[in-house]
Amino acid sequence: MKFCSACGSARIVSTIPDGDQRHRLVCSDCGEIFYSNPKIVAGALLVWENQVLLAKRSIQPRRGYWTIPAGFMENGETMADAAARESFEEALATPASLNLYGLFDLPHINQVYVMYQGELHQGQYGVGEESLEASLYSEATIPWDELAFPVVIRTLKQYFRDRRDNHFPVFQETLAPLKPIT
Amino acid sequence: MKFCSACGSARIVSTIPDGDQRHRLVCSDCGEIFYSNPKIVAGALLVWENQVLLAKRSIQPRRGYWTIPAGFMENGETMADAAARESFEEALATPASLNLYGLFDLPHINQVYVMYQGELHQGQYGVGEESLEASLYSEATIPWDELAFPVVIRTLKQYFRDRRDNHFPVFQETLAPLKPIT
Repeated sequence: MKFCSACGSARIVSTIPDGDQRHRLVCSDCGEIFYSNPKIVAGALLVWENQVLLAKRSIQPRRGYWTIPAGFMENGETMADAAARESFEEALATPASLNLYGLFDLPHINQVYVMYQGELHQGQYGVGEESLEASLYSEATIPWDELAFPVVIRTLKQYFRDRRDNHFPVFQETLAPLKPIT
Repeated sequence: MKFCSACGSARIVSTIPDGDQRHRLVCSDCGEIFYSNPKIVAGALLVWENQVLLAKRSIQPRRGYWTIPAGFMENGETMADAAARESFEEALATPASLNLYGLFDLPHINQVYVMYQGELHQGQYGVGEESLEASLYSEATIPWDELAFPVVIRTLKQYFRDRRDNHFPVFQETLAPLKPIT
């Protein structure tokens, strides 16, 4: 932020406003305070005949790697709305059901992931605009080394573990930054 | 938003960017796109000897009404971090434990509430900066007509119901706008 979006001033400073405990970007001319808060990413792990639906990303980051359909929640949506919309945008898939499943805190990138789990409607899917491919994978065929994000790996591992008991309690986890390979 | 925060231009328009499906505010001069997304409010229902901790709000909205300590999640936090911080800011309370409990979608105001439930450390609390009072309430003494928000009412009702079975599964709910009193 270089200019104040309220008055156009270039005199933006980082300071702790009165009654606050944190540094914020504040306009020195009009006093406007600019807050930045974590974003929610909603996703859907959709299952059809014991296989899970993954999409291969056509966009950065992690182009060419496989993901559970997921993306930034938009204003006016519920979390389940967002998960369903992303399923369609990325894999032309419609959820027949959606149950809250995994919550992930990613404080290093100011994100919260909310993963739903449900059934893929009529087993139908396709290649959405943000994808290069889409495919159903069994536990034995998951391309573990080609998954896009740690949150995808963790959700799939939890799902296959929970499936042994056919019990899918809501789980929560904090994911730390990826360590560089040394 | 009247001015572009990247270049200072006043030529902000609402348009659907290429590859997008929604209207966004876009700078006609430099092309910067400004996204707005839902915010997370995190709270903690803290319990001590069968009583729950509430704080009376000293700030708007709903000044003078009672709430479960809760507030906007900040960058760099986990949801539980935010719930613990708000407990201290509003009621000088420290959670001895925090378990994920209620998720609420409030799409009409672009918010998601994440409520934790836990034990109040050593039964200690006080009046935080954003509060006029803080108090422990039993189920029989809750000031139902003086609660600040529907999400507070719903969380408390769910809690007292779950307490009969001593079982507190994670629940999720969408809250609609308050209807005007006719």
